[in-house]
Amino acid sequence: MFNATCQSELKEFLKDRISLSESTRANYARGEDTYDPILSQAVVFPESNEEVSKILKICNKYKMPVVPFGTGTSLEGNVVGNENGITISLEKMNKVLSVNVEDFDCRVQACVTKEQINDYLREDGVFFPIDPGANAAIGGMAATSASGTMAVKYGTMKTVISGLTVVLPNGDIINTGSRTKKTSAGYNLTNLFIGSEGTLGIITEVQLRLSPIPESIMAAVCHFPTLENAVQTAQQVIQYGVPIARIEMLNKDQMGISINYSKLKDVEAVPTLFFEFHGSESSNNENIKIVEEISKDNNGSSFKWAKDLEDRNKLWQARWDVYYSVKALIKNGRVYSTDICVPISNITECVNFAEEQAKKFGLRAPMVGHLGDGNFHVVLPYDPAKKEMYKKIREFNDLLIKKGLELNGTITGEHGVGLHKKEYLLEEHPDNIPVMKSIKRTIDPNNIMNPGKIFDLN
Amino acid sequence: MFNATCQSELKEFLKDRISLSESTRANYARGEDTYDPILSQAVVFPESNEEVSKILKICNKYKMPVVPFGTGTSLEGNVVGNENGITISLEKMNKVLSVNVEDFDCRVQACVTKEQINDYLREDGVFFPIDPGANAAIGGMAATSASGTMAVKYGTMKTVISGLTVVLPNGDIINTGSRTKKTSAGYNLTNLFIGSEGTLGIITEVQLRLSPIPESIMAAVCHFPTLENAVQTAQQVIQYGVPIARIEMLNKDQMGISINYSKLKDVEAVPTLFFEFHGSESSNNENIKIVEEISKDNNGSSFKWAKDLEDRNKLWQARWDVYYSVKALIKNGRVYSTDICVPISNITECVNFAEEQAKKFGLRAPMVGHLGDGNFHVVLPYDPAKKEMYKKIREFNDLLIKKGLELNGTITGEHGVGLHKKEYLLEEHPDNIPVMKSIKRTIDPNNIMNPGKIFDLN
Repeated sequence: MFNATCQSELKEFLKDRISLSESTRANYARGEDTYDPILSQAVVFPESNEEVSKILKICNKYKMPVVPFGTGTSLEGNVVGNENGITISLEKMNKVLSVNVEDFDCRVQACVTKEQINDYLREDGVFFPIDPGANAAIGGMAATSASGTMAVKYGTMKTVISGLTVVLPNGDIINTGSRTKKTSAGYNLTNLFIGSEGTLGIITEVQLRLSPIPESIMAAVCHFPTLENAVQTAQQVIQYGVPIARIEMLNKDQMGISINYSKLKDVEAVPTLFFEFHGSESSNNENIKIVEEISKDNNGSSFKWAKDLEDRNKLWQARWDVYYSVKALIKNGRVYSTDICVPISNITECVNFAEEQAKKFGLRAPMVGHLGDGNFHVVLPYDPAKKEMYKKIREFNDLLIKKGLELNGTITGEHGVGLHKKEYLLEEHPDNIPVMKSIKRTIDPNNIMNPGKIFDLN
Repeated sequence: MFNATCQSELKEFLKDRISLSESTRANYARGEDTYDPILSQAVVFPESNEEVSKILKICNKYKMPVVPFGTGTSLEGNVVGNENGITISLEKMNKVLSVNVEDFDCRVQACVTKEQINDYLREDGVFFPIDPGANAAIGGMAATSASGTMAVKYGTMKTVISGLTVVLPNGDIINTGSRTKKTSAGYNLTNLFIGSEGTLGIITEVQLRLSPIPESIMAAVCHFPTLENAVQTAQQVIQYGVPIARIEMLNKDQMGISINYSKLKDVEAVPTLFFEFHGSESSNNENIKIVEEISKDNNGSSFKWAKDLEDRNKLWQARWDVYYSVKALIKNGRVYSTDICVPISNITECVNFAEEQAKKFGLRAPMVGHLGDGNFHVVLPYDPAKKEMYKKIREFNDLLIKKGLELNGTITGEHGVGLHKKEYLLEEHPDNIPVMKSIKRTIDPNNIMNPGKIFDLN
């Protein structure tokens, strides 16, 4: 039940920016995860740091749980509602606050999306290089420590964020970090909040490092008879020091699905690598030549490259199709994505294991991999009505995560822990959990911030 | 007074690896800072994580302060001894534990130095790219969040460390992070301990990301009539997206000092930029050409470049001379180095301010700058017997830090807070300090870990 005094205190300044309607609450009840929606008591729509602060002060007083919500594109249950709490949608905090092109930085409110900032920057010769699949909010990407296809060259949210504004559970508004490219001034609170999934406070502003738009972008694609050949190619490309911007892998099954979905011609349903090069035209040409040679040494065939945007997109089409082509396999289907990440020398073993196990379970196992990072996703389509199938998927993921940990991997490369992976976090970092919990308790003593996500306090 | 029971408990397993002799204690009483030495009650020399754990358990029981000590190259009083506590020298923990060339990673004990690891890796085609001035211990570099000349291309300790072993004040040994290139598994404890200057626990092992040794390394040097010209050149080089490995600046005064010290010929005592390029030979050639053009557009002159090691070292000689050439200016002198870091668009104003103020104070103000990062050091020589001069230096630094903060800078780019900068940290991050302190209190409730460094608990 929604405490009436708490409700009226919130209404007093939020006016019509608090909603108790079931339809609104249902819209903010989950992300793009596989959980059933949970409706919070209310959804609030603050417009400023000060309003977020007021909300948290009130919630803290009434020990009312709070779920921060961005674009709702998270995959691990990170933003599933709380039946005893409220959800804070940050969608009205969507302004670009400043851009300093000469310093390659900008400051945005939490709900500016990655596409929005890149549209905004288009004329400035700089761009924001973190590219997860979805058009996610930058605050949410910070909260889950997201990365994506370009991490191999440009890093992850951990490395491109130089500062944050965070509202703490007690309502304090703090500015962490600096506009500078580096700092050693005290504890790195910026990186403590990055990846904290809304459990320590609400990220309301993000200070971002930008990258210069490269003079030339070129793309290439190459087929391989075996996955091992593809992985070895990626490894050698990095070892050679080729400054590559992306190396993505699609396995045989995913290639077949993409080809079918977009009626692609001139590509084969075999393990395939997609490359992208950012640099000067001549260095890109040189690097493509090196990559072609390395690919051929590893039995690569049909090596193709392109430099114009349209041609590049054609080459990469199978890659861009992944999510929707898999989703289309089952009518009204959902997709569960695994997120294991291992040292690159172990990725062949890990991917082979995933393919074998999927076969055993009778699951289709299309895969896409950020090979430069050792991170790959098995993208599993299922019919939510068929509980048995979902159970199999979870069992499959369970085995895959165990295998990943055996191979010195991590349970999540870029999606976070959320609800899905709490038990696995205990396996990966049993010794870290007490420290994490003590930090949580000291910053959020009433456990109001996204309780039950990442770990259970008890 | 050194508690006798505590002492005998330590002796029981450390045997002769605990020293109470005054000469040993004096050897571990400070770093390369400007503080007078403070002798701890004893110095201990553990050989394993388990021994560090035993030591901390005992010290925690007796509430005995602990100062972790690496190579003693820190500059801000970070390792100054504690008259009521003990100093833990990690020098016996100096082994390379593993190297995985195919994954570009290695794991080292805390007291492996940057030169030691690079010697060890020489045959493997990979290297550790963080290059502070001193041959520091990697554990210490982690603890102060160090960086150095190559941060513009390769990042800082924050970005090249993927995991740590840390012994907590209660004796718990935890392994943070992962061998993978990225992870979103819970709070980023790795980056909480990086830069914590021994106040939260003792870093005993570091998991490092390595870089491939570039096919070709080339160097270039260029003179400029004004500092502004030099800074503008650096800015434009980065804006152009030239993948440069280092851009270092020496001001007029430092150039004069270096020329004098090493009897350098063919260089002038004017603001000078030092470049280094890591890549393929052809891309380096191409990039040198671009940098030469940008330099000339900004009134640069005498542009010279070289590719062989010996010739490169000749070009960079004035840069490598900085520390010793300044130290040699005053017999038995010490050197105080400032460490301000600002957004690159503000660096001209900041450096100009430093030059003017130095003149006003009657101080010599040689300077070296990591221009790609907006970080520069005024390297101030002084005679420790002349208290008046040191007072002037501190006043100068005080003004410079205030100016840096006005220019959106940070009080320390890479040396840390230590004892020198506690009051300035309060100015830069007044709102962060309560969070830092609450984390400190929850992890180290007895305040035994390097107490009085970074901030005072009260």
